[in-house]
Amino acid sequence: MTDANQRLVQRIFENAKFIHSLGIELGSFDFGWCETTVKVTPALQQQHGFVHAGVLMTLADHTCGGAAASTVPADKEVITVENKVSFLRPASGSILVCRAEVLRTGRNLVFVEAAVSVEDSGARFMVAKASSTLAVIRLDSMRSTGSAGAKAQ
Amino acid sequence: MTDANQRLVQRIFENAKFIHSLGIELGSFDFGWCETTVKVTPALQQQHGFVHAGVLMTLADHTCGGAAASTVPADKEVITVENKVSFLRPASGSILVCRAEVLRTGRNLVFVEAAVSVEDSGARFMVAKASSTLAVIRLDSMRSTGSAGAKAQ
Amino acid sequence: MTDANQRLVQRIFENAKFIHSLGIELGSFDFGWCETTVKVTPALQQQHGFVHAGVLMTLADHTCGGAAASTVPADKEVITVENKVSFLRPASGSILVCRAEVLRTGRNLVFVEAAVSVEDSGARFMVAKASSTLAVIRLDSMRSTGSAGAKAQ
Amino acid sequence: MTDANQRLVQRIFENAKFIHSLGIELGSFDFGWCETTVKVTPALQQQHGFVHAGVLMTLADHTCGGAAASTVPADKEVITVENKVSFLRPASGSILVCRAEVLRTGRNLVFVEAAVSVEDSGARFMVAKASSTLAVIRLDSMRSTGSAGAKAQ
Repeated sequence: MTDANQRLVQRIFENAKFIHSLGIELGSFDFGWCETTVKVTPALQQQHGFVHAGVLMTLADHTCGGAAASTVPADKEVITVENKVSFLRPASGSILVCRAEVLRTGRNLVFVEAAVSVEDSGARFMVAKASSTLAVIRLDSMRSTGSAGAKAQ
Repeated sequence: MTDANQRLVQRIFENAKFIHSLGIELGSFDFGWCETTVKVTPALQQQHGFVHAGVLMTLADHTCGGAAASTVPADKEVITVENKVSFLRPASGSILVCRAEVLRTGRNLVFVEAAVSVEDSGARFMVAKASSTLAVIRLDSMRSTGSAGAKAQ
Repeated sequence: MTDANQRLVQRIFENAKFIHSLGIELGSFDFGWCETTVKVTPALQQQHGFVHAGVLMTLADHTCGGAAASTVPADKEVITVENKVSFLRPASGSILVCRAEVLRTGRNLVFVEAAVSVEDSGARFMVAKASSTLAVIRLDSMRSTGSAGAKAQ
Repeated sequence: MTDANQRLVQRIFENAKFIHSLGIELGSFDFGWCETTVKVTPALQQQHGFVHAGVLMTLADHTCGGAAASTVPADKEVITVENKVSFLRPASGSILVCRAEVLRTGRNLVFVEAAVSVEDSGARFMVAKASSTLAVIRLDSMRSTGSAGAKAQ
C-alpha cells in the first residue's frame, strides 16, 4: 500500500460525518483489506433491541470503501455502486467488528466483500455478510453543491 | 390493512431507536406499501458532502420493513433476511423520500422493493433502489437479552 | 433509440449461443427497455419440475443487457457487472416473458431491473425480479482468445 | 453429513434436467460445502465468446443448493430464495469449477456463498462470486403440476 492509499483510507474515515455519528472507528488496514469496529449503544438499536440492519449495512459499506480505497492509483478514489447484505443472525453484544476484503480491483470497478461479527464471552459470531461493487473515480471529482441528483457516474 | 397491521407498522417506527437517531419519519402506508421521509442534516453525510450510503440503506430497509409488516397475520412480525441497494446517483438535497412496495407476501417470506428519491426545486430524482427479502416470524419471538448470536431464524 | 442501438440489441441476441441453446427470443424493445420470451421445455427444468432458477437468471440477465444496450452511445456496448434475482414463486407454465427497464444510464454504468412472469390461463404471475448493474465498455474491446481471466474491466 | 443428506445432494443433481443440459457435474461434497464442474462448450457462450453470465449463475445457484442440502434435517430440502452474482472477470478457458460454502444453516433459511473459477495453464482465476439465500422446505412439498404460480413459500 502506498502512502497515498494510506492517507486516502484515513481521510475517508475522518471526513465522513455519518461514520462519526455512529461511532465507527478505523482499525488496521493494508492493500486490499480494512478492519473497523463500532461500540454498540442503545441509539443503534432496532425495535427488538438488536443492532439495526442499517448500522450493519453502514459499517459494511464504509469498510468496503476503505478496503477498495487501499488499492486505487494515487489520483483516484471510490464510491459505492451497490451493496448487498445478508443478515445471518440478530446482532447484539457490546462490540461489532468488520473486515472487508477486495476480491478484485480493476481500472473502473472494485469488488469487495465484508463480514460483520460480534464478540461475546470470547466467542465471535458472524452476523452479516456483504458483497459490494465500487466505482473508481477521479480524486475530487465529487463534491456536493447541495443540489439534488449530481452526476458522478 | 387490519388495525393490527396498522399498529404493527407504527410500533416498528416508534420503537426503533436508530430510526429516531437518524430522524426518519413514517409517512403514509397501507396494505403492501409504506412511505417515509428524512430531513438531510450534516450528521448524515459521507466524505464528499453527499448523504451516506448507509443512510439510504437504513431508510430503504426500515421502509421495506413497514411495507412487509402491513401484510402479515395478526400474530406475526418481520425481520430483514437480506437487502441489496443500488446507488443510482450521489444524493444531496434537503429531504429524502422513500416508498417501499411488496412484490409478494408469503407465509414465511416477504419480497419488497423500495425507491429512495430526493426532491429539489420541484423535481424528484431517484437516488437509490432496494430489493429486500424479509422473514415472517412469530410476534414477540425476538427479544434481545444482550448476548450475541441470538437464534431467531 | 438510434439505428446503431437497434442493431446492437439485435446483435446481442443473435450472437449469444447460450441464448439460442435455451430458446430465448427477443421481442419488442426501444430506448431503455427490452422484452423477451422463452418457451418452457423439459430441458429447462430443475428437480421438482419447475423452471430452473438459472433459466430465470439467464433470461433476466440477457434482457437487462438488451435494455442497457438500447441506451449507450454508438461506439459502446455493455457487460454485466452483477445481478441479483429474487425468486417470488416456483415457475411453471408454457411461456416465460421478461421485461427489463433501465433505471439510470450513465457514462460508465447502467442500472437495470427486470421482471420475469409466466402466463397461464390468461393470468400473468411475476415469478422473479432482477436488479442488475452493467458496465459501459468500448465496442469490440472484448473478444475471447480462449485464455482465462481476460481483463475487460 | 448423514446418508440422507448425501442422497439428497445427489438427487438434486440427478433430477435437474437443466443441469444435465449444461453438462454441470457434481464433484466432492460434505456437510456445509459442495463442489461442481462444467466443461466449457460453444453452446455456453455469450456474444463475445466468453461463458454466458447465465451459465455462471446457474452453476453457482445449483452448487449453493447442493451445499445447503447437505445441512438440512432428513425430512427437508431447499429451494433458492434469491441469489446475487458478481462477475469479476470475463470467463473463458476449458473448465469452470465452483465451490459453495454454507455461512449459516437455520431452521427456515440457509445462507450460502459460492466462488466460480476457471483453470488455465495451471493457474486458477475467480471469475464470479455468488451470495444466496435458500429456504428450507418439507421434502416433497414441491411438485410441479404444470400450472403457473405454485405456492411453495
